[in-house]
Amino acid sequence: MHSITMESNLTKYWEKGLSMSSSQASSVLVIADSNLPEHYTKEVVDICKKESPTYMISFKGGEGIKTLSQVSEVYLHLEKMGADRKSLVVCLGGGTITDMGGFAASTYKRGVSLIHLPTTVLAMVDAAIGGKTGINTEMQVNFGLLKNQIGTFYNPKMVGINHKWLQSLNEEEILSGWGEMVKHALLKGGTHLKDLMKLSPNLKDLSPLLISSARIKEAIVHRDEKEIGERASLNLGHTVGHAIESLARDKGWEMKHGVAVAWGIVFALEASVMKMGFDKTTADELQNWIVSSISKGIEVDGADAVWSKMSHDKKNVKGNVIDVLMLAPGEVIWDFVWEREEFTILWEKFRGRYA
Amino acid sequence: MHSITMESNLTKYWEKGLSMSSSQASSVLVIADSNLPEHYTKEVVDICKKESPTYMISFKGGEGIKTLSQVSEVYLHLEKMGADRKSLVVCLGGGTITDMGGFAASTYKRGVSLIHLPTTVLAMVDAAIGGKTGINTEMQVNFGLLKNQIGTFYNPKMVGINHKWLQSLNEEEILSGWGEMVKHALLKGGTHLKDLMKLSPNLKDLSPLLISSARIKEAIVHRDEKEIGERASLNLGHTVGHAIESLARDKGWEMKHGVAVAWGIVFALEASVMKMGFDKTTADELQNWIVSSISKGIEVDGADAVWSKMSHDKKNVKGNVIDVLMLAPGEVIWDFVWEREEFTILWEKFRGRYA
Repeated sequence: MHSITMESNLTKYWEKGLSMSSSQASSVLVIADSNLPEHYTKEVVDICKKESPTYMISFKGGEGIKTLSQVSEVYLHLEKMGADRKSLVVCLGGGTITDMGGFAASTYKRGVSLIHLPTTVLAMVDAAIGGKTGINTEMQVNFGLLKNQIGTFYNPKMVGINHKWLQSLNEEEILSGWGEMVKHALLKGGTHLKDLMKLSPNLKDLSPLLISSARIKEAIVHRDEKEIGERASLNLGHTVGHAIESLARDKGWEMKHGVAVAWGIVFALEASVMKMGFDKTTADELQNWIVSSISKGIEVDGADAVWSKMSHDKKNVKGNVIDVLMLAPGEVIWDFVWEREEFTILWEKFRGRYA
Repeated sequence: MHSITMESNLTKYWEKGLSMSSSQASSVLVIADSNLPEHYTKEVVDICKKESPTYMISFKGGEGIKTLSQVSEVYLHLEKMGADRKSLVVCLGGGTITDMGGFAASTYKRGVSLIHLPTTVLAMVDAAIGGKTGINTEMQVNFGLLKNQIGTFYNPKMVGINHKWLQSLNEEEILSGWGEMVKHALLKGGTHLKDLMKLSPNLKDLSPLLISSARIKEAIVHRDEKEIGERASLNLGHTVGHAIESLARDKGWEMKHGVAVAWGIVFALEASVMKMGFDKTTADELQNWIVSSISKGIEVDGADAVWSKMSHDKKNVKGNVIDVLMLAPGEVIWDFVWEREEFTILWEKFRGRYA
């Protein structure tokens, strides 16, 4: 229900969907990002309030809220408001709000209804799509960036897309979302990739492509919900991207997730040329486009540090480093296994070129 | 896999199943009840150790371990041992171990493999069957007995049944498991009910019926995993049973879950005669059998206190009190809605008869 097509729970008719879902709920809890302009939250709460008893709890969005103690706060709130199995949780915010709030909703009374209203580009095209919820353990926070170790698979009944909420984003946040859009475009290939390559990473340019970008992820997830196979292709750029992000954080320098992923994609293209026979001219063109769009250099560590981070990544089993490479745009190998030596050589080449 | 039939993951060939699952796992964590004789745990750990790196963590089983902080301890242990998506969690203990350990396994990296080795009658026929995991929130602990508010649906790949583990149980614990067996027998009716009625609630008598009792629950759950309909019939005796259990606990008197459920069933039979035309002679016979098997009186509160507890039960929506009544053995109404006045009259009658 609440979907434009049978295949999708993504919709720009979010107000209608929210109103209808609220009317079916015994009560509603809106989990809002306190960084948002107040009238965003008020608008959402007002729609729900017309239909059902509605409560609000806010968190200052950011990786720091993805802990069990914040989840407990949500539980407590649900408890106090007398939430039951017919209650609805609405997450209004970026990916950390949808990840944490989604986890709480999926585990409260073994699952209450859930709606995501993502307010960042990154959340719209990625975090809020595909039913993964996740938080970090206390220990991992100290570890750096081994994220989302605790989580569930749980689908929201609607993901509402409202471009207006993006207006409070700064350039870096938009660039971060764009990184994931680049990933989707490469996975899809064809016209969508060509369209995105014509655009600059700013809100006005990207807005028309947001829903089609999100639908690329949605289609992949539909075919492989529990990540047994193809869903792993969504890790394109993430093996190296996570490592870059984590190393940057260790130095106290915050690198936006999608920007790290964009750099990860640049490396994946380099590796795909060497290992998979990806066309060099096409790779060059793509790499130049990505690097010039980021418009900032990258400070990267040596291969040893990167390897160490990569082999701790949660998707890796028995110490292997698994990566996603490409044969061509739209053609993906999602279970490439790195040999350390080979990786080291390629990494140093990449570093020489971009660092 | 590991099942005797395609329909069931219950098996008495638990050693083979455990060994095979361990060999497929990258590592194993055994979560054991420290109340158990040490050689039970050693036997299990030894089987796993032959096949895969194996770690052990123990908790003193009991409702008190069903908290987020104990779950965190399990997460931390999994983290430290380098668990990945191919790791296996083995829960050896009663229902509080399988509930809490199952929740941890279902949420660590969005789910690792899980095996339950239940060591109480209650866990064998009920808690370990059907894929519900659950913990209590801190707040609920103070509330009394509003249990399992946080949880997931997550199926173990095997539930291993070993009668020998039951030998460390005392009479009360066996009686508690028998209460759930009575429930299954009433839901099933026919020969299984007749067989159970011939037996006393002691281990020797009950052992041959354990697997068939568990399979009754398993079959109901298979038909309705997410509790949209029929699974609710498993709440027979639980609406009132939970209230009795909770009121007893408020007085500092611990009443075993299954014993409270048995009393709940006695009341449900009383109500079924009045509201559903359940045959009075059959009901009398069943009530006499149950009450004489419990062989202890019951101390119960007035209807107001019971109603208040019932209307806070998690399965109830919008303040309604929903209950399970019966037309006859094997024929169940799982969505009966109580009117308070009617309940009060019946409750006082029940109280007069048994308190």
